[in-house]
Amino acid sequence: MLKLFTAKGSCALASQIALEEAGADYQAVSIDLAAGEQRRPDYLKLNPKGRVPVLITERGPLTESPAILSFIAQSFPQARLAPLDDAFAFARVQEFNLYLCSTVHVAHAHLFRGTRWADDPAAIAEMKRKAPQVVEESFRLIENEMLEGPWVMGESYTICDPYLFTMAQWLERDGVDPDRLPRIRDHRRRMEQRPAVAKVLQG
Amino acid sequence: MLKLFTAKGSCALASQIALEEAGADYQAVSIDLAAGEQRRPDYLKLNPKGRVPVLITERGPLTESPAILSFIAQSFPQARLAPLDDAFAFARVQEFNLYLCSTVHVAHAHLFRGTRWADDPAAIAEMKRKAPQVVEESFRLIENEMLEGPWVMGESYTICDPYLFTMAQWLERDGVDPDRLPRIRDHRRRMEQRPAVAKVLQG
Repeated sequence: MLKLFTAKGSCALASQIALEEAGADYQAVSIDLAAGEQRRPDYLKLNPKGRVPVLITERGPLTESPAILSFIAQSFPQARLAPLDDAFAFARVQEFNLYLCSTVHVAHAHLFRGTRWADDPAAIAEMKRKAPQVVEESFRLIENEMLEGPWVMGESYTICDPYLFTMAQWLERDGVDPDRLPRIRDHRRRMEQRPAVAKVLQG
Repeated sequence: MLKLFTAKGSCALASQIALEEAGADYQAVSIDLAAGEQRRPDYLKLNPKGRVPVLITERGPLTESPAILSFIAQSFPQARLAPLDDAFAFARVQEFNLYLCSTVHVAHAHLFRGTRWADDPAAIAEMKRKAPQVVEESFRLIENEMLEGPWVMGESYTICDPYLFTMAQWLERDGVDPDRLPRIRDHRRRMEQRPAVAKVLQG
Protein backbone atom coordinates (compact mmCIF):
# COMPACT_ATOMS: atom_id res chain seq x y z
CA MET A 1 0.00 0.00 0.00
CA LEU A 2 1.18 3.50 -0.79
CA LYS A 3 1.75 5.88 2.11
CA LEU A 4 1.70 9.66 1.64
CA PHE A 5 3.24 12.02 4.17
CA THR A 6 1.28 15.27 4.13
CA ALA A 7 0.92 18.37 6.31
CA LYS A 8 -2.06 20.63 6.88
CA GLY A 9 -2.13 23.51 4.39
CA SER A 10 0.84 22.18 2.42
CA CYS A 11 1.33 21.38 -1.28
CA ALA A 12 0.98 17.67 -0.40
CA LEU A 13 -2.76 18.20 -0.85
CA ALA A 14 -2.27 17.90 -4.63
CA SER A 15 -0.75 14.43 -4.37
CA GLN A 16 -3.46 13.27 -2.00
CA ILE A 17 -6.21 14.44 -4.36
CA ALA A 18 -4.46 12.66 -7.25
CA LEU A 19 -4.26 9.42 -5.24
CA GLU A 20 -7.95 9.74 -4.46
CA GLU A 21 -8.84 10.44 -8.10
CA ALA A 22 -6.76 7.42 -9.15
CA GLY A 23 -8.66 5.15 -6.77
CA ALA A 24 -5.35 4.20 -5.16
CA ASP A 25 -5.10 2.14 -2.02
CA TYR A 26 -3.14 4.54 0.19
CA GLN A 27 -2.70 5.82 3.69
CA ALA A 28 -2.22 9.53 4.41
CA VAL A 29 -0.05 10.45 7.39
CA SER A 30 -0.16 14.11 8.39
CA ILE A 31 2.93 15.48 10.12
CA ASP A 32 3.14 18.69 12.17
CA LEU A 33 5.52 21.12 10.44
CA ALA A 34 5.12 23.75 13.19
CA ALA A 35 6.32 21.15 15.71
CA GLY A 36 9.31 20.35 13.46
CA GLU A 37 8.35 16.73 12.78
CA GLN A 38 9.88 17.07 9.29
CA ARG A 39 13.32 17.39 10.90
CA ARG A 40 13.09 14.24 13.02
CA PRO A 41 15.80 11.69 12.15
CA ASP A 42 13.34 9.00 11.06
CA TYR A 43 11.62 11.45 8.72
CA LEU A 44 14.92 12.78 7.32
CA LYS A 45 15.80 9.19 6.41
CA LEU A 46 12.76 9.17 4.13
CA ASN A 47 13.35 12.69 2.82
CA PRO A 48 16.66 14.39 3.63
CA LYS A 49 15.10 17.64 2.36
CA GLY A 50 12.80 17.68 5.41
CA ARG A 51 9.69 18.59 3.48
CA VAL A 52 6.34 17.18 2.42
CA PRO A 53 5.07 15.44 0.39
CA VAL A 54 6.80 12.09 0.47
CA LEU A 55 5.14 9.13 -1.21
CA ILE A 56 6.34 5.80 0.12
CA THR A 57 6.17 3.21 -2.64
CA GLU A 58 7.10 -0.47 -2.58
CA ARG A 59 10.41 0.55 -4.20
CA GLY A 60 11.18 3.45 -1.88
CA PRO A 61 10.27 7.07 -1.17
CA LEU A 62 9.54 9.69 -3.81
CA THR A 63 9.54 13.46 -3.28
CA GLU A 64 8.74 16.64 -5.27
CA SER A 65 5.06 17.16 -6.10
CA PRO A 66 5.30 17.12 -9.93
CA ALA A 67 7.33 13.88 -9.83
CA ILE A 68 4.83 12.26 -7.45
CA LEU A 69 1.89 13.46 -9.55
CA SER A 70 3.39 12.01 -12.75
CA PHE A 71 4.16 8.76 -10.95
CA ILE A 72 0.54 8.48 -9.82
CA ALA A 73 -0.69 9.19 -13.37
CA GLN A 74 1.66 6.54 -14.80
CA SER A 75 0.91 3.97 -12.08
CA PHE A 76 -2.88 4.25 -12.50
CA PRO A 77 -3.28 4.66 -16.28
CA GLN A 78 -6.97 3.74 -16.15
CA ALA A 79 -7.62 6.98 -14.23
CA ARG A 80 -6.42 8.99 -17.25
CA LEU A 81 -4.79 11.70 -15.16
CA ALA A 82 -2.23 12.57 -17.87
CA PRO A 83 -1.81 12.04 -21.64
CA LEU A 84 0.62 9.16 -21.19
CA ASP A 85 0.88 8.14 -24.83
CA ASP A 86 1.68 11.59 -26.22
CA ALA A 87 5.14 12.91 -25.37
CA PHE A 88 4.32 16.50 -26.33
CA ALA A 89 1.02 16.64 -24.41
CA PHE A 90 2.69 14.96 -21.43
CA ALA A 91 5.49 17.55 -21.58
CA ARG A 92 2.90 20.34 -21.51
CA VAL A 93 1.43 18.84 -18.33
CA GLN A 94 4.93 18.76 -16.84
CA GLU A 95 5.59 22.32 -18.01
CA PHE A 96 2.50 23.62 -16.22
CA ASN A 97 3.31 21.77 -13.01
CA LEU A 98 6.89 22.99 -13.15
CA TYR A 99 5.71 26.57 -13.34
CA LEU A 100 3.64 26.00 -10.21
CA CYS A 101 6.57 24.35 -8.44
CA SER A 102 9.45 26.65 -9.38
CA THR A 103 7.69 30.02 -9.74
CA VAL A 104 4.31 30.10 -7.96
CA HIS A 105 5.30 28.01 -4.93
CA VAL A 106 8.61 29.88 -4.68
CA ALA A 107 6.78 33.25 -4.75
CA HIS A 108 4.52 32.00 -1.94
CA ALA A 109 7.50 30.74 0.08
CA HIS A 110 8.87 34.29 0.35
CA LEU A 111 5.90 35.15 2.51
CA PHE A 112 6.50 32.51 5.15
CA ARG A 113 9.96 31.09 4.62
CA GLY A 114 12.14 34.11 3.88
CA THR A 115 14.78 32.73 6.27
CA ARG A 116 15.74 30.32 3.51
CA TRP A 117 17.30 33.20 1.57
CA ALA A 118 18.11 35.93 4.12
CA ASP A 119 19.02 36.29 7.81
CA ASP A 120 18.42 40.03 8.31
CA PRO A 121 14.88 40.54 9.70
CA ALA A 122 14.46 43.71 7.59
CA ALA A 123 15.16 41.75 4.39
CA ILE A 124 12.75 39.01 5.43
CA ALA A 125 10.10 41.67 6.13
CA GLU A 126 10.74 43.23 2.71
CA MET A 127 10.19 39.87 0.95
CA LYS A 128 7.00 39.41 2.96
CA ARG A 129 5.82 42.87 1.91
CA LYS A 130 6.39 42.20 -1.78
CA ALA A 131 5.14 38.59 -1.78
CA PRO A 132 1.42 39.27 -2.43
CA GLN A 133 2.34 41.21 -5.58
CA VAL A 134 4.76 38.50 -6.77
CA VAL A 135 2.24 35.75 -6.06
CA GLU A 136 -0.52 37.62 -7.91
CA GLU A 137 1.72 38.23 -10.94
CA SER A 138 2.65 34.55 -11.05
CA PHE A 139 -1.04 33.57 -10.98
CA ARG A 140 -1.88 36.27 -13.54
CA LEU A 141 0.08 34.38 -16.18
CA ILE A 142 -1.95 31.25 -15.43
CA GLU A 143 -5.20 33.25 -15.54
CA ASN A 144 -4.34 34.90 -18.88
CA GLU A 145 -2.17 32.41 -20.73
CA MET A 146 -2.20 28.91 -19.32
CA LEU A 147 -5.55 27.82 -17.91
CA GLU A 148 -7.47 26.58 -20.94
CA GLY A 149 -10.73 25.75 -19.17
CA PRO A 150 -12.75 24.14 -17.88
CA TRP A 151 -9.64 22.24 -16.71
CA VAL A 152 -6.05 23.41 -16.98
CA MET A 153 -5.40 21.39 -20.13
CA GLY A 154 -8.87 21.95 -21.60
CA GLU A 155 -11.53 19.25 -21.63
CA SER A 156 -9.36 16.65 -19.92
CA TYR A 157 -8.88 16.67 -16.17
CA THR A 158 -5.19 16.01 -15.41
CA ILE A 159 -2.64 16.12 -12.60
CA CYS A 160 -2.34 19.86 -13.31
CA ASP A 161 -5.75 20.47 -11.77
CA PRO A 162 -5.21 19.33 -8.17
CA TYR A 163 -1.85 21.10 -8.16
CA LEU A 164 -3.31 24.42 -9.35
CA PHE A 165 -6.19 23.98 -6.90
CA THR A 166 -3.75 23.45 -4.03
CA MET A 167 -1.82 26.65 -4.68
CA ALA A 168 -4.99 28.64 -5.38
CA GLN A 169 -6.19 27.59 -1.91
CA TRP A 170 -3.36 29.74 -0.55
CA LEU A 171 -4.43 32.99 -2.24
CA GLU A 172 -6.29 34.48 0.73
CA ARG A 173 -3.40 33.63 3.06
CA ASP A 174 -1.02 35.15 0.50
CA GLY A 175 -2.95 38.44 0.61
CA VAL A 176 -4.33 38.13 -2.93
CA ASP A 177 -8.04 38.72 -3.61
CA PRO A 178 -9.26 35.61 -5.50
CA ASP A 179 -11.87 37.71 -7.31
CA ARG A 180 -9.03 39.40 -9.18
CA LEU A 181 -8.34 36.01 -10.79
CA PRO A 182 -11.88 34.96 -11.80
CA ARG A 183 -10.94 32.03 -14.06
CA ILE A 184 -8.77 30.51 -11.32
CA ARG A 185 -11.54 31.22 -8.77
CA ASP A 186 -14.04 29.36 -10.98
CA HIS A 187 -11.59 26.47 -11.42
CA ARG A 188 -11.42 26.21 -7.62
CA ARG A 189 -15.19 25.94 -7.45
CA ARG A 190 -15.26 23.22 -10.12
CA MET A 191 -12.61 21.34 -8.19
CA GLU A 192 -14.56 21.55 -4.93
CA GLN A 193 -17.45 19.79 -6.63
CA ARG A 194 -15.40 16.71 -7.43
CA PRO A 195 -16.08 13.89 -4.95
CA ALA A 196 -12.37 13.06 -4.59
CA VAL A 197 -11.56 16.65 -3.66
CA ALA A 198 -14.47 16.93 -1.22
CA LYS A 199 -13.39 13.68 0.43
CA VAL A 200 -9.79 14.84 0.91
CA LEU A 201 -10.82 18.29 2.17
CA GLN A 202 -13.16 16.73 4.73
CA GLY A 203 -10.06 14.81 5.90
CA MET B 1 13.50 20.57 -37.16
CA LEU B 2 13.61 21.45 -33.46
CA LYS B 3 14.75 24.93 -32.50
CA LEU B 4 16.12 25.70 -29.03
CA PHE B 5 16.29 29.23 -27.68
CA THR B 6 19.26 29.48 -25.33
CA ALA B 7 21.32 32.20 -23.67
CA LYS B 8 24.97 32.25 -22.68
CA GLY B 9 25.51 30.99 -19.14
CA SER B 10 21.87 29.98 -18.70
CA CYS B 11 20.20 26.72 -17.70
CA ALA B 12 19.32 26.18 -21.38
CA LEU B 13 22.73 24.52 -21.68
CA ALA B 14 21.23 21.34 -20.20
CA SER B 15 18.61 21.05 -22.93
CA GLN B 16 21.18 21.69 -25.64
CA ILE B 17 23.47 18.97 -24.31
CA ALA B 18 20.50 16.57 -24.18
CA LEU B 19 19.59 17.37 -27.81
CA GLU B 20 23.19 16.74 -28.80
CA GLU B 21 23.33 13.45 -26.86
CA ALA B 22 20.06 12.39 -28.50
CA GLY B 23 21.47 13.02 -31.96
CA ALA B 24 18.57 15.37 -32.64
CA ASP B 25 18.35 17.55 -35.73
CA TYR B 26 18.09 20.96 -34.08
CA GLN B 27 19.07 24.57 -34.35
CA ALA B 28 20.25 26.56 -31.32
CA VAL B 29 19.42 30.26 -31.22
CA SER B 30 21.18 32.25 -28.52
CA ILE B 31 19.40 35.36 -27.29
CA ASP B 32 20.97 38.21 -25.31
CA LEU B 33 19.35 38.40 -21.87
CA ALA B 34 21.39 41.47 -20.85
CA ALA B 35 19.97 43.31 -23.88
CA GLY B 36 16.44 42.24 -22.87
CA GLU B 37 15.75 40.13 -25.95
CA GLN B 38 13.63 37.79 -23.76
CA ARG B 39 11.11 40.61 -23.30
CA ARG B 40 10.63 41.38 -27.00
CA PRO B 41 7.03 40.85 -28.15
CA ASP B 42 7.92 38.11 -30.66
CA TYR B 43 9.78 36.20 -27.96
CA LEU B 44 7.02 36.66 -25.39
CA LYS B 45 4.62 35.07 -27.88
CA LEU B 46 6.75 31.92 -27.71
CA ASN B 47 7.24 32.13 -23.96
CA PRO B 48 5.15 34.65 -21.98
CA LYS B 49 7.45 33.97 -19.01
CA GLY B 50 10.27 35.74 -20.84
CA ARG B 51 12.91 33.15 -20.03
CA VAL B 52 15.09 30.52 -21.64
CA PRO B 53 15.03 27.72 -22.62
CA VAL B 54 12.22 27.41 -25.12
CA LEU B 55 12.14 24.37 -27.38
CA ILE B 56 10.14 24.94 -30.55
CA THR B 57 8.60 21.66 -31.66
CA GLU B 58 6.38 20.91 -34.65
CA ARG B 59 3.42 21.11 -32.24
CA GLY B 60 4.42 24.32 -30.51
CA PRO B 61 6.80 25.72 -27.90
CA LEU B 62 7.79 23.98 -24.70
CA THR B 63 9.37 25.63 -21.64
CA GLU B 64 10.80 24.61 -18.25
CA SER B 65 14.05 22.64 -18.37
CA PRO B 66 12.86 19.40 -16.71
CA ALA B 67 9.83 19.23 -19.05
CA ILE B 68 12.05 19.83 -22.11
CA LEU B 69 14.58 17.26 -20.90
CA SER B 70 11.88 14.60 -20.41
CA PHE B 71 10.42 15.44 -23.82
CA ILE B 72 13.82 14.93 -25.45
CA ALA B 73 14.28 11.62 -23.63
CA GLN B 74 10.82 10.44 -24.72
CA SER B 75 11.19 11.69 -28.31
CA PHE B 76 14.54 9.96 -28.85
CA PRO B 77 14.10 6.68 -26.97
CA GLN B 78 17.06 5.06 -28.76
CA ALA B 79 19.37 7.52 -26.93
CA ARG B 80 18.30 5.97 -23.59
CA LEU B 81 18.42 9.27 -21.71
CA ALA B 82 15.80 8.19 -19.15
CA PRO B 83 14.28 4.90 -17.90
CA LEU B 84 11.14 5.31 -19.99
CA ASP B 85 9.60 1.92 -19.25
CA ASP B 86 9.85 2.10 -15.47
CA ALA B 87 7.50 4.59 -13.80
CA PHE B 88 9.36 4.58 -10.49
CA ALA B 89 12.81 5.01 -12.03
CA PHE B 90 11.45 7.73 -14.32
CA ALA B 91 9.93 9.49 -11.30
CA ARG B 92 13.31 9.43 -9.57
CA VAL B 93 14.83 11.16 -12.60
CA GLN B 94 12.08 13.77 -12.43
CA GLU B 95 12.55 14.13 -8.67
CA PHE B 96 16.24 14.91 -9.08
CA ASN B 97 15.64 17.43 -11.85
CA LEU B 98 12.89 19.06 -9.83
CA TYR B 99 15.26 19.57 -6.93
CA LEU B 100 17.68 21.32 -9.29
CA CYS B 101 14.88 23.45 -10.73
CA SER B 102 12.97 24.47 -7.61
CA THR B 103 15.73 24.54 -4.98
CA VAL B 104 19.21 24.81 -6.52
CA HIS B 105 18.31 27.16 -9.38
CA VAL B 106 16.14 29.24 -7.02
CA ALA B 107 19.02 29.53 -4.54
CA HIS B 108 21.27 30.72 -7.39
CA ALA B 109 18.65 33.22 -8.59
CA HIS B 110 18.86 35.08 -5.27
CA LEU B 111 22.40 36.10 -6.20
CA PHE B 112 21.51 37.82 -9.47
CA ARG B 113 17.75 38.22 -9.59
CA GLY B 114 16.78 39.37 -6.12
CA THR B 115 14.50 42.02 -7.66
CA ARG B 116 12.03 39.22 -8.34
CA TRP B 117 11.25 39.03 -4.61
CA ALA B 118 12.22 42.44 -3.13
CA ASP B 119 12.49 46.09 -4.15
CA ASP B 120 14.58 47.46 -1.28
CA PRO B 121 18.28 47.46 -2.31
CA ALA B 122 19.31 46.48 1.23
CA ALA B 123 17.13 43.36 1.07
CA ILE B 124 18.51 42.48 -2.36
CA ALA B 125 22.05 42.91 -1.02
CA GLU B 126 21.21 40.67 1.95
CA MET B 127 19.97 37.88 -0.36
CA LYS B 128 23.14 38.26 -2.40
CA ARG B 129 25.25 37.98 0.73
CA LYS B 130 23.54 34.79 1.88
CA ALA B 131 23.27 33.16 -1.57
CA PRO B 132 26.69 31.40 -1.64
CA GLN B 133 25.83 29.62 1.60
CA VAL B 134 22.33 28.66 0.37
CA VAL B 135 23.69 27.43 -2.96
CA GLU B 136 26.40 25.38 -1.24
CA GLU B 137 23.87 23.80 1.14
CA SER B 138 21.60 22.90 -1.76
CA PHE B 139 24.53 21.23 -3.57
CA ARG B 140 25.67 19.54 -0.34
CA LEU B 141 22.52 17.41 -0.36
CA ILE B 142 23.32 16.29 -3.92
CA GLU B 143 26.94 15.59 -2.95
CA ASN B 144 25.98 13.54 0.11
CA GLU B 145 22.62 11.98 -0.69
CA MET B 146 21.65 12.09 -4.36
CA LEU B 147 24.58 11.68 -6.75
CA GLU B 148 25.04 7.92 -7.01
CA GLY B 149 28.08 7.96 -9.32
CA PRO B 150 29.57 7.79 -11.78
CA TRP B 151 26.38 9.39 -13.13
CA VAL B 152 23.58 10.91 -11.09
CA MET B 153 21.42 7.79 -11.34
CA GLY B 154 24.35 5.36 -11.09
CA GLU B 155 25.69 3.46 -14.08
CA SER B 156 23.19 4.95 -16.54
CA TYR B 157 23.72 8.41 -18.00
CA THR B 158 20.38 10.26 -17.97
CA ILE B 159 18.86 13.72 -18.43
CA CYS B 160 19.84 14.40 -14.80
CA ASP B 161 23.50 14.62 -15.80
CA PRO B 162 23.49 17.59 -18.20
CA TYR B 163 21.19 19.45 -15.81
CA LEU B 164 23.45 18.92 -12.78
CA PHE B 165 26.46 19.79 -14.94
CA THR B 166 24.81 23.04 -16.01
CA MET B 167 24.16 24.23 -12.48
CA ALA B 168 27.56 23.03 -11.24
CA GLN B 169 29.12 25.25 -13.94
CA TRP B 170 27.76 28.20 -11.94
CA LEU B 171 29.53 27.33 -8.67
CA GLU B 172 32.50 29.68 -9.10
CA ARG B 173 30.19 32.55 -10.10
CA ASP B 174 28.02 31.70 -7.09
CA GLY B 175 31.00 32.10 -4.76
CA VAL B 176 31.23 28.40 -3.88
CA ASP B 177 34.59 26.57 -4.01
CA PRO B 178 34.00 23.49 -6.21
CA ASP B 179 36.66 21.58 -4.27
CA ARG B 180 34.31 21.58 -1.28
CA LEU B 181 32.00 19.36 -3.38
CA PRO B 182 34.48 16.81 -4.74
CA ARG B 183 31.95 14.29 -6.08
CA ILE B 184 30.15 17.01 -8.03
CA ARG B 185 33.52 18.40 -9.21
CA ASP B 186 34.48 14.93 -10.52
CA HIS B 187 31.08 14.58 -12.21
CA ARG B 188 31.79 17.86 -14.03
CA ARG B 189 35.10 16.48 -15.28
CA ARG B 190 33.44 13.28 -16.50
CA MET B 191 30.84 15.38 -18.31
CA GLU B 192 33.47 17.53 -20.02
CA GLN B 193 34.95 14.38 -21.53
CA ARG B 194 31.74 13.50 -23.36
CA PRO B 195 31.88 14.49 -27.04
CA ALA B 196 28.35 15.97 -26.97
CA VAL B 197 29.26 18.23 -24.04
CA ALA B 198 32.55 19.32 -25.58
CA LYS B 199 30.78 20.14 -28.84
CA VAL B 200 28.14 22.30 -27.13
CA LEU B 201 30.70 24.07 -24.92
CA GLN B 202 32.83 24.92 -27.97
CA GLY B 203 29.61 26.40 -29.36
